[in-house]
Amino acid sequence: MKILMITEDRNDDSEVLYPLYRMLEEGFEVDVAALTKKAVQSKYHFTVDANKTVAECHSSDYDGLILPGGSAPEKLRLSQDALRLTKEIFEAEKPVCAICHGPQLLISAGVLKGKKATCYPGIADDLKNAGALYEDSPVVVDGNLVTSRRPQDLPYWMREFVKLFH
Amino acid sequence: MKILMITEDRNDDSEVLYPLYRMLEEGFEVDVAALTKKAVQSKYHFTVDANKTVAECHSSDYDGLILPGGSAPEKLRLSQDALRLTKEIFEAEKPVCAICHGPQLLISAGVLKGKKATCYPGIADDLKNAGALYEDSPVVVDGNLVTSRRPQDLPYWMREFVKLFH
Repeated sequence: MKILMITEDRNDDSEVLYPLYRMLEEGFEVDVAALTKKAVQSKYHFTVDANKTVAECHSSDYDGLILPGGSAPEKLRLSQDALRLTKEIFEAEKPVCAICHGPQLLISAGVLKGKKATCYPGIADDLKNAGALYEDSPVVVDGNLVTSRRPQDLPYWMREFVKLFH
Repeated sequence: MKILMITEDRNDDSEVLYPLYRMLEEGFEVDVAALTKKAVQSKYHFTVDANKTVAECHSSDYDGLILPGGSAPEKLRLSQDALRLTKEIFEAEKPVCAICHGPQLLISAGVLKGKKATCYPGIADDLKNAGALYEDSPVVVDGNLVTSRRPQDLPYWMREFVKLFH
């Protein structure tokens, strides 16, 4: 399996590290895409190498998508390439997971109408306004979509995401 | 399953977060023990609540042991309670994993003689002097013991540790 993670500077460190390591533990390959190829600087300390730009990625190359949170999604939702990848992977019904502010990309990609989902409480109204059926739960699964609220939900988020591949 | 993690201030954030979340993902219960009950402050940003002191823990309550790295093990190896727990859980042949500087606790607990193990390169000589058969590999498994070198090895470390419970 080959998974795409889309993130940028000022992501939440744990929301990048946990799913990245978890996918590698699973034996999956992971591409990390940002607006430019660089060492992506998380909010607190850690960096992760973006080996791809969102512009050069093709959704057909990937079996799943990970959207970590932090302030990164607010920057990424302005990128047509980030939205294209999100929309295409979502609509191909491949597993997509987003946590915390990650669902901002799902909102801007216009894929949430009628879907059960959760997110960071501070953007819950935006999720509802985008047509999602918001639930305040550690993890919400609707078909190929797995969403969570915050770093403390990471174990439950990844448990459900990994299940979709088995 | 109930797992004990022993750590202290100035651990490596990722070496605490990844195994802690990974155990919760697995559905295991985790007690975090430190010298005192407190919010244990990792090196860079994150904290984890120590809900136990090493003094009050009984090894018989646990099915496995996790020893993260950072500067914490140098402090913990001076605690007879931390060494008692390490030795007792190891000698009961329950799964024990240590990463980076975590093996300093295994050295001081005197359990490494003749065991294949790895650790952070800067303490490899200490591991050898303690009688371990040192290997420079991302993960080394010898019976109930799973050791790794550094944060980048976390996926392979946890993959092998989780296997021991199945």
